[in-house]
Amino acid sequence: MAIRTDDTGFKGYKLLQDTDAFCYGVDAVLLADYSRAEETERVLDLGSGNGAVPIVLMGKFNPASVTGIEVQPAMAELAAKSAELNGLSDRVKFICGDVKDIRNLVEGGSFDVVTCNPPYFESGRGPASSASAAFVARHETTAKLMDFVSAAAYALRRGGRFVLVHRPSRLPDIFDCCRKCGLEPKKLRMVAPKGGESANIVLVSCVKGGGKELKIDPQLSVHTQDGGYTEEIERIYERI
Amino acid sequence: MAIRTDDTGFKGYKLLQDTDAFCYGVDAVLLADYSRAEETERVLDLGSGNGAVPIVLMGKFNPASVTGIEVQPAMAELAAKSAELNGLSDRVKFICGDVKDIRNLVEGGSFDVVTCNPPYFESGRGPASSASAAFVARHETTAKLMDFVSAAAYALRRGGRFVLVHRPSRLPDIFDCCRKCGLEPKKLRMVAPKGGESANIVLVSCVKGGGKELKIDPQLSVHTQDGGYTEEIERIYERI
Repeated sequence: MAIRTDDTGFKGYKLLQDTDAFCYGVDAVLLADYSRAEETERVLDLGSGNGAVPIVLMGKFNPASVTGIEVQPAMAELAAKSAELNGLSDRVKFICGDVKDIRNLVEGGSFDVVTCNPPYFESGRGPASSASAAFVARHETTAKLMDFVSAAAYALRRGGRFVLVHRPSRLPDIFDCCRKCGLEPKKLRMVAPKGGESANIVLVSCVKGGGKELKIDPQLSVHTQDGGYTEEIERIYERI
Repeated sequence: MAIRTDDTGFKGYKLLQDTDAFCYGVDAVLLADYSRAEETERVLDLGSGNGAVPIVLMGKFNPASVTGIEVQPAMAELAAKSAELNGLSDRVKFICGDVKDIRNLVEGGSFDVVTCNPPYFESGRGPASSASAAFVARHETTAKLMDFVSAAAYALRRGGRFVLVHRPSRLPDIFDCCRKCGLEPKKLRMVAPKGGESANIVLVSCVKGGGKELKIDPQLSVHTQDGGYTEEIERIYERI
């Protein structure tokens, strides 16, 4: 492990990252942002890795609590250290466990919001990676999309939101899994690297027991044509 | 009926339209464009109305044949007159019938491409309209989304494409219906009125028996900020 301390840029919160493993990127920040978590809400983050989403969530929205579930012990420990470093240990907890085992990890219906930045590639698909922690973070090795979605459906109260970030190529699978679990897709945002390019990230927000009607948010571009960040990204990162 | 003859702008083809009923818009042209029909292909258009999609398809791609199915006799007759007016009667046919009755209307597996611009609003939802032909065209009165999708699945050869235009709010329903009928969503394009606005049209292309993996095309904007058409729309309309 090569541990580095990064400034998230949100409320001065720091994040410990193992540079040999998986370092968080724009996806985690966009996911935290799209959750629109409120100060009274209890949030569960499935597949929390080094705790990027929980820490950024606290920095941006200051929800009542965030619980992270992470299958890799070294990652879960690192995440807990980040929470401690920021003085958030009382409200940000990490559980080392498998999302498939959700019924033994948290109480059913006890969360208002579930966030998830699941592995993007189906087993046997997508680019391989040499570092094993990074490989687990990017591939459906230990859990598949359906495992994350059904864990979310179990943990959420009725009317609660399941918010995930994924590759748009998996959109039919995402809708399929969510509906099968009673999570109705209600909001969608495509994210493209630049204007005029194809979206390569999708944000989806579902409501447990929600009625049919998907609202489309305006597409977000990450970069301007000259390579800098767009104004909206700067706003999401709270730099302006 | 108040019949008007419009120039489609494609190969000089004309279209007869009943101004009391439903006149074609950008949706029909975008659908025809997204079909990417080839000259050897046989195309079926479900819910063909006054024949806008078949006529524009012939103008843009000159496929081997286009067959339209339309439930309203007056619309089907008008469409046949448009085909005649353009000297296309040998290759563009219209069948007056209900898509639910597809097995009695066309041979199974006999089409390479099926296009569909179905009614956008579920029964009992969306804006009502006084003109009855327009109401049928916009609402799921005579057929529901699933009826169109299963008709397409029956009519298509294996590997053939089902291309539809719809409201993005129905995307989960679209994916759900298509997958249930063995039509895998392979390509998607969001269309927004202007850059920075939410998409209000979606184009989806499915392949009968296709493997999983949805490709996202760059979002299309219809208008520039000053209200004119974007360059890409002008290209699709073949004005530049």
